[in-house]
Amino acid sequence: MDNKAEMQEAIKIQGEVVRKLKSEKASKDQIDEEVAKLLALKAQIGGDNVKHQFVLKTAKGTRDYNPKQMAIRERVFSTIIGCFKRHGAETIDTPVFELKETLTGKYGEDSKLIYDLKDQGGELLSLRYDLTVPFARYLAMNKITNIKRYHIAKVYRRDNPAMTRGRYREFYQCDFDIAGQYDAMIPDAECLKIVHDILSELDLGDFRIKVNDRRILDGMFAVCGVPDDKFRTICSTVDKLDKMPWEDVRKEMVTEKGLSEEAADQIGEYVSLQGGMELAERLLQDQKMCRSKQACAGLSDIKLLFSYLQLFQVTDKVVFDLSLARGLDYYTGIIYEGVLTQAGVAPGSTEAQNGTPAEESVSVGSVAGGGRYDGLVGMFDPKGRKVPCVGISIGIERIFSILEQKAEASAEKVRTTEVQVMVASAQKNLLEERLRLLTELWNAGIKAEVMYKKNPKLLSQLQHCEESGIPLVAILGEQELKDGVVKLRVVASREEVDVSRAALVDEIRRRTSLA
Amino acid sequence: MDNKAEMQEAIKIQGEVVRKLKSEKASKDQIDEEVAKLLALKAQIGGDNVKHQFVLKTAKGTRDYNPKQMAIRERVFSTIIGCFKRHGAETIDTPVFELKETLTGKYGEDSKLIYDLKDQGGELLSLRYDLTVPFARYLAMNKITNIKRYHIAKVYRRDNPAMTRGRYREFYQCDFDIAGQYDAMIPDAECLKIVHDILSELDLGDFRIKVNDRRILDGMFAVCGVPDDKFRTICSTVDKLDKMPWEDVRKEMVTEKGLSEEAADQIGEYVSLQGGMELAERLLQDQKMCRSKQACAGLSDIKLLFSYLQLFQVTDKVVFDLSLARGLDYYTGIIYEGVLTQAGVAPGSTEAQNGTPAEESVSVGSVAGGGRYDGLVGMFDPKGRKVPCVGISIGIERIFSILEQKAEASAEKVRTTEVQVMVASAQKNLLEERLRLLTELWNAGIKAEVMYKKNPKLLSQLQHCEESGIPLVAILGEQELKDGVVKLRVVASREEVDVSRAALVDEIRRRTSLA
Repeated sequence: MDNKAEMQEAIKIQGEVVRKLKSEKASKDQIDEEVAKLLALKAQIGGDNVKHQFVLKTAKGTRDYNPKQMAIRERVFSTIIGCFKRHGAETIDTPVFELKETLTGKYGEDSKLIYDLKDQGGELLSLRYDLTVPFARYLAMNKITNIKRYHIAKVYRRDNPAMTRGRYREFYQCDFDIAGQYDAMIPDAECLKIVHDILSELDLGDFRIKVNDRRILDGMFAVCGVPDDKFRTICSTVDKLDKMPWEDVRKEMVTEKGLSEEAADQIGEYVSLQGGMELAERLLQDQKMCRSKQACAGLSDIKLLFSYLQLFQVTDKVVFDLSLARGLDYYTGIIYEGVLTQAGVAPGSTEAQNGTPAEESVSVGSVAGGGRYDGLVGMFDPKGRKVPCVGISIGIERIFSILEQKAEASAEKVRTTEVQVMVASAQKNLLEERLRLLTELWNAGIKAEVMYKKNPKLLSQLQHCEESGIPLVAILGEQELKDGVVKLRVVASREEVDVSRAALVDEIRRRTSLA
Repeated sequence: MDNKAEMQEAIKIQGEVVRKLKSEKASKDQIDEEVAKLLALKAQIGGDNVKHQFVLKTAKGTRDYNPKQMAIRERVFSTIIGCFKRHGAETIDTPVFELKETLTGKYGEDSKLIYDLKDQGGELLSLRYDLTVPFARYLAMNKITNIKRYHIAKVYRRDNPAMTRGRYREFYQCDFDIAGQYDAMIPDAECLKIVHDILSELDLGDFRIKVNDRRILDGMFAVCGVPDDKFRTICSTVDKLDKMPWEDVRKEMVTEKGLSEEAADQIGEYVSLQGGMELAERLLQDQKMCRSKQACAGLSDIKLLFSYLQLFQVTDKVVFDLSLARGLDYYTGIIYEGVLTQAGVAPGSTEAQNGTPAEESVSVGSVAGGGRYDGLVGMFDPKGRKVPCVGISIGIERIFSILEQKAEASAEKVRTTEVQVMVASAQKNLLEERLRLLTELWNAGIKAEVMYKKNPKLLSQLQHCEESGIPLVAILGEQELKDGVVKLRVVASREEVDVSRAALVDEIRRRTSLA
């Protein structure tokens, strides 16, 4: 559109689109998107006066982290990494994009959510969808047959964002995986122990870890009369049981997926079962279930798993739940999911604000998941050599949301820097002296700052300390310089003492190590 | 191509392409790319027997980090972050992609290197090219007028990779920036102090920090008779002086860019100048240079900068160098670049291996850079409100390469886990007892692991400790269990002592805090 009249017509039409959406009370996302188009059109015709009118936003479904959010995020990471390290994990990193074909065929129906890069010549690339497939590619490429590693990085899904509930298109995953040929259920149990410990340490309220096994699901489908070629699609319907009542799930199976009513009802009986080791034992006696060798193997492993979980002291939070069916194609054995069971985590939480009562024991969503995937590495190995793997993934955006809300609700002030002392002056023309002292402190490893003004007012220097939580101020004046001292002020108590220049570093260290 | 005969013909042709390239001794990258296409074609027609034959690699110009590389990387980050925090910085994070228009028009000729995402419906997105433009977008969007922040994250450039020299398409930047209206050159000098301290602390050998000013460059071009509309393109030719001799730079100016020989020669005289504060003073007396008000303002600021650098005790490494011309469009004032001046940083370095003698004082490349960009935030603000900014960026891939080579050359073994103790058994059938003890240790915060076998051999358990640097082994046997003790073995000395179960945690803590 290089014709100005045409452009103005386009702007007029787009303006009407926006007005219409607003009058229809369309979603904020939708309106924002159309407003963005409108502004882009205006920017194209406008001269200098409108040249800045492009859209000032992050990409849909993404967000910036401000310093306060980063402080919370770093606390969460440090807890999680601490736990991974306690369990002896190394760490690796992989590129944010992979060859497109590396990701192809690993995610079942979710593959449509993969972000592709534009073909600018050269290889076809896609943003990673999770950290598991890149990990498997890494193992196969480097012929690694055993490793225990964690990997914390962002992954990308073109899903429908729900940002207030912590669902983003760019989000962190914290993965821990154990690869190697080992005796059954020992690494699997350790993964559950880690989920248990992390969710406990993060202090997010009560939680449950649901456990099931792909072999039990497949065996169950088989004995209930689901045709082989419908296993995966029926599985992804069962996966919706945490969001939909059984009636709707049953309906989807029968009307959309063409399953017989009889088969659906049989599935319905099994997926309502929950328990512990005793449920596995009972089902091992179940005549119908035992017709499937697969299911039997899965049930025996669940039994063994619970015996290790007892030794790890975590059985109080783990539930064997036959309705758990994680969607990803690559799982082959045990699968699990950690869910928080308290809806209202803190006053001011989104759920509570929206009017939904904060009930106890209502699942508010999955914050961890994982399972065993013994075939994935073999898909990458030129000779198909398998490396058995089991792992967990902590979905921390939801956890951030909760902890952010907690921090906001509490009176506690989150510090975003670690500055120990501000170098200030009470009189004019002391910039050089301030910078000299600042250099002494920096060179001694003290975290220190100064206001970037030649002659800042003492009050504004002190105010800055109050606002950003700096505990000490080192004040210079003509008299102090003459006496070879510095006036050290404690911001909280307003107490002031003269400290000799030579003793200053030690004095600051002493006072801030106590703080 | 769904016709099998057609496919086979395509494979034949592609096979010839590969053979031809090999016979012509084409570059490895080029051959790899064509081989990849060949394998992809083969995979399309092949049955099960060839289905694994797709390419097992990371995207061109990218790499994985293995646990050893990660250990080095984390050490580097911790040094850099330590320095940023000593200077009172907060941290933020932004998404890996931005709206395409956010990046448009910020990088001059380099814009062609930006990675775009595929248009899958919705917004047009690009991967971030640096952290500076997203930072400016963040400031404008949140109406922040002053902040001191660091940001460590990966950025993306579709450049020609040279991986042995640490040039990648995906690489980390470590940025520190000070935004706000402050008195001249105080934050600028602090940025140089930070570059100085980081390069010193990382122990990379000798280095220099070159300083210049965009206003001095522009003023110099003006007084030398460069037409206004050629400033940027001549500037990017001058930028090549660190890689090309003056003769070639002059030739490019005159023949490619159409500059007069006279103007080129005048530029040649200026860009050969290097010095400190005294050079700035001398040029302030230079009759020709002083015809440019811009240049004068720049020179006065260089003078002021050096006076602060003296207070910060870093003038020994900083050089005022009129040939420094950083390419990015957004710089408006001071610019700088940190370069290592030792070619052979360690035995086994790439340069030395390639037969190039490791000479002293040969520039081996830039590892830090930055400058002042007072106009960038205003480009994003709806009302054009400016927020003056100055910052640095540490390019750490080159630094990783050097430190990796150093680590390989040295005998020192890089540990990749922090495990303090392995729980082992000398006899069979003690898995449960091992897991019980392991749980005790984990719950007490001890970093511990166990082999995931029911009955591992003692020798292989000890071997694992030797290999991965685990200092202690807690050995269980029938006798120890009867006596309520654990045999604690020091891996390095092979010394063994019986420790009572109750005292074990303290004993492990004591011994590993000493180590």
